[in-house]
Amino acid sequence: WSEGDPKFVSPGGFSFRPRGRILIDGQLASGSRFSDRNISTTGARAARLGFEGTYGSNFFYQFEVDFADAATEVTSAYFGWRKKLSNSVTTELNVGSRLTERGIDGSTGSDQTPFLERNAITIALVPLKGFFGLGFTSKTFGSNWHVAVSVVGEPINSSSASDDSTTIIGRAHWNPIKTSAGVVHLGAWGYHEDYSSSVTNLTVNAREANRYNDNIRIFTGPLGAPNHSNAFGLELGGTHNGLWAFGEYGERHIQFRPSTGLGLVKLKAAAVSAGWVMTGEKAPFAQRGGTFTMMDVANPVFEGGLGAIELVARYENTDFSDAPLGGKGRAWTAGLNWYLNDISRVMLNYIHFKTNNKSGDYVGPDAGNLLGTRFQISF
Amino acid sequence: WSEGDPKFVSPGGFSFRPRGRILIDGQLASGSRFSDRNISTTGARAARLGFEGTYGSNFFYQFEVDFADAATEVTSAYFGWRKKLSNSVTTELNVGSRLTERGIDGSTGSDQTPFLERNAITIALVPLKGFFGLGFTSKTFGSNWHVAVSVVGEPINSSSASDDSTTIIGRAHWNPIKTSAGVVHLGAWGYHEDYSSSVTNLTVNAREANRYNDNIRIFTGPLGAPNHSNAFGLELGGTHNGLWAFGEYGERHIQFRPSTGLGLVKLKAAAVSAGWVMTGEKAPFAQRGGTFTMMDVANPVFEGGLGAIELVARYENTDFSDAPLGGKGRAWTAGLNWYLNDISRVMLNYIHFKTNNKSGDYVGPDAGNLLGTRFQISF
Amino acid sequence: WSEGDPKFVSPGGFSFRPRGRILIDGQLASGSRFSDRNISTTGARAARLGFEGTYGSNFFYQFEVDFADAATEVTSAYFGWRKKLSNSVTTELNVGSRLTERGIDGSTGSDQTPFLERNAITIALVPLKGFFGLGFTSKTFGSNWHVAVSVVGEPINSSSASDDSTTIIGRAHWNPIKTSAGVVHLGAWGYHEDYSSSVTNLTVNAREANRYNDNIRIFTGPLGAPNHSNAFGLELGGTHNGLWAFGEYGERHIQFRPSTGLGLVKLKAAAVSAGWVMTGEKAPFAQRGGTFTMMDVANPVFEGGLGAIELVARYENTDFSDAPLGGKGRAWTAGLNWYLNDISRVMLNYIHFKTNNKSGDYVGPDAGNLLGTRFQISF
Repeated sequence: WSEGDPKFVSPGGFSFRPRGRILIDGQLASGSRFSDRNISTTGARAARLGFEGTYGSNFFYQFEVDFADAATEVTSAYFGWRKKLSNSVTTELNVGSRLTERGIDGSTGSDQTPFLERNAITIALVPLKGFFGLGFTSKTFGSNWHVAVSVVGEPINSSSASDDSTTIIGRAHWNPIKTSAGVVHLGAWGYHEDYSSSVTNLTVNAREANRYNDNIRIFTGPLGAPNHSNAFGLELGGTHNGLWAFGEYGERHIQFRPSTGLGLVKLKAAAVSAGWVMTGEKAPFAQRGGTFTMMDVANPVFEGGLGAIELVARYENTDFSDAPLGGKGRAWTAGLNWYLNDISRVMLNYIHFKTNNKSGDYVGPDAGNLLGTRFQISF
Repeated sequence: WSEGDPKFVSPGGFSFRPRGRILIDGQLASGSRFSDRNISTTGARAARLGFEGTYGSNFFYQFEVDFADAATEVTSAYFGWRKKLSNSVTTELNVGSRLTERGIDGSTGSDQTPFLERNAITIALVPLKGFFGLGFTSKTFGSNWHVAVSVVGEPINSSSASDDSTTIIGRAHWNPIKTSAGVVHLGAWGYHEDYSSSVTNLTVNAREANRYNDNIRIFTGPLGAPNHSNAFGLELGGTHNGLWAFGEYGERHIQFRPSTGLGLVKLKAAAVSAGWVMTGEKAPFAQRGGTFTMMDVANPVFEGGLGAIELVARYENTDFSDAPLGGKGRAWTAGLNWYLNDISRVMLNYIHFKTNNKSGDYVGPDAGNLLGTRFQISF
Repeated sequence: WSEGDPKFVSPGGFSFRPRGRILIDGQLASGSRFSDRNISTTGARAARLGFEGTYGSNFFYQFEVDFADAATEVTSAYFGWRKKLSNSVTTELNVGSRLTERGIDGSTGSDQTPFLERNAITIALVPLKGFFGLGFTSKTFGSNWHVAVSVVGEPINSSSASDDSTTIIGRAHWNPIKTSAGVVHLGAWGYHEDYSSSVTNLTVNAREANRYNDNIRIFTGPLGAPNHSNAFGLELGGTHNGLWAFGEYGERHIQFRPSTGLGLVKLKAAAVSAGWVMTGEKAPFAQRGGTFTMMDVANPVFEGGLGAIELVARYENTDFSDAPLGGKGRAWTAGLNWYLNDISRVMLNYIHFKTNNKSGDYVGPDAGNLLGTRFQISF
């Protein structure tokens, strides 16, 4: 029970562990010249039930359903084989629906991101399939590197009346330096999407730096039927004891069908973020897969301690201006994360945003502020 | 396992308990002069999956999703701190989605109400947010009183495109007499709602004394855009060994916007109910929070006993006649509850209803009868 | 834990067991003269969370929610009493929602069918209520026979604004020969449906031999308001060690209202299937209730074995030609099932299909091929 939640193991080697995730958000906006943007909202960023486990030493499975955002979505639903190839190299093969890797933030679970919402690269360059997809995933981990490749169709809850769009998506990282104090992280990712003929319109309306204000978005404007897209991204950064800093950059090149007269449209995004754990713990970054992870809290609140406290900051940039009516946006976020113990935290984010849309209800330069908070338990 | 279901506790003080609730209903109606009201229906009043637990001695959490009524709804999703202020006083603070307190019936879980459906005060005076809402709740319990206050936005599954409506809702009770045989209960509650500008119409169609006949309702008729509402209610009654009796009264005053020409509209409801546990158990009423609770069955059926048997009766009245086209209704219910053990019961209700609507499909005086039954397990 | 998954039992005799089911499918179609039929799709045939358990020696309950196919559906939600009438005879009474028995395939859980999809009798002759329905079920089991009768209304997630349609559905089987090597199985089933007046149109669009291609269907064409229907079916076959073979035939006679000018319309379906377990296990058939069941794997993959391997084949026929614009179809399936252990398997089906529709988007003779696969865990 080191993870702080129950895990049941049978004599035959079958293990079962319930999974739960509750992320409760509240958010205020102000300062926009559009009154519809200055709203206060609440919501559940995640509300999940599920289970996971292993069978024998090589087989594992996970299942999770999310009930947040007025929709029911099967997120994880996969099983896999894991095999040790050598002392330092492990490989696994999954089948089913699993979070596909794409950038540091995009490969991190929603309960482990250092900010309320993932960065602009993750949000603005998301493939049509979304974060999940049904198919095969292969992951191989060495002592200071990993490679993940997924070939997936549409999410579980998609139509059976037309061809699935298919996506090949991969990511790799390497730590040229890895010491007990920290790592230098270099990473890259990319994907290729082939759209089903049933995809007759592709528009991106990316929320900026938040989840609970539908009106603070950056729009590509109406486009048309796409043929395929290619995307790539780069990751550079590292950790040193309680400090971490990462920069990410990415582009998605969407090839539209000749009939649209659009040709190739390039969406671009960048983000730089940093954090400092003030209470002495290591930065909550999992070197093995190159993702953020939950804090290993030294003095949990429930044992009389202070918990762990982390200060974070981010700048991010979204650029859809290559599209005829594409907008732009930038956001600056300062955040405070209080980890009560290994499975719960409270978050506070202050966000200053700028958007400059050429289409939609909020055209022209605008700026404003968001104050967001989250209460979270996840196991 | 005194509660009759599994609870898992880790050495580190983390506990996890699965929650489940299945309420299966069947219902027949007859005697109405409208044939569409004389229908037989079946349904699940509740079909829930979830979990709850504690972390250390002060922190607790609960999560539950309901799949009944052709809709998926996150009901409970909260965490809280609990603190003993003195030998007799305990306070707690919750954040998330939780049943907000409003009257005896309205503060009681759907698996613990003595009748198939909660009373007219609960149903007819429900705030726009419904039974649940996302926000903060504070509860403080003394030896013979409690006070609960919630400040909540909209439910989890609401829109992120507009301001949340907000509701402040509170309830308190006091037991001037409290002995080992029973209590005298005095209670009061109230709420204030501020409607979001996105609420452009408010109509109340309250089902009367049942859940599974959509056509037996009392209508306010079409109203318009509301500005805010204030509601209050009073509770008076008590228990003596196996006997209980309570009266409740409440009003909701809705202030409409000037453009509607409506001004203030007052909705009113009242209910009187009583019960007798024939098999010797105490009345299933939790003095601490002033709500009904599950029976503590002396001789469970699964140990060869008879279970517990309770006779119940209720009169209730709904009065929407202050609205220009508002209706009225009254209902008389007699019921038999058979508690097989602490977690399961069978219910039978006979209901005589009267409605007098001025709008909708069932205008004018009408009366009829309902026979409803429920099979229930809940843990 | 003999079933390979955790089960928790309290000192008081309450048991609780989590249930999970993940069936991940992928499918390719080719060869049809309609390009919309030659599509590749993926999906989750089942994605379920739930629990089951017992209270004392006579009471049991089960609850399961399915999140597959972009819909949330409460499937099982029932409780029951079980009583031993003699050494060889056990009877049980359930209330709630449970799979109603109808043919061998139709009485088998979706995780235990030997082919990716149930046979034509199950699919083409399904009552309006579907596979589940809310009501009462009585089952009685002898040493070589069983009888099941259900009286049910509509599924849990149906309307409360109109009368429920009601269905009486029953099934029985007898084993004239039953030895340690196998059984001869004779079975029969039938149902009677009374439609609610709210059912103003009844059309059957039966998918042929697969689940994930919405375009490969057999259509009755537009009909009209039905009054009631009667259906029956016959089952004949048996098992001998690792071999099994069954034939099924069924008809559904739908009586339409006079206003439709249709009179009685007869839908017909037949199927013959056989299987061979190559690795020495007994055929995965539960004699007690006359259904397929999960394999009892002798050498699980997770203990270094090969698992169990089964070859299966099926021919099936659907005949809606008694309807004015009713179609016909036939399908031949060859399949390979690899059972890794008692709770997981991988399936591969090759299907050759023929359809001849008189209505819908795919009129006239057509044929094609399907390749389908499934990865499954179920406990």
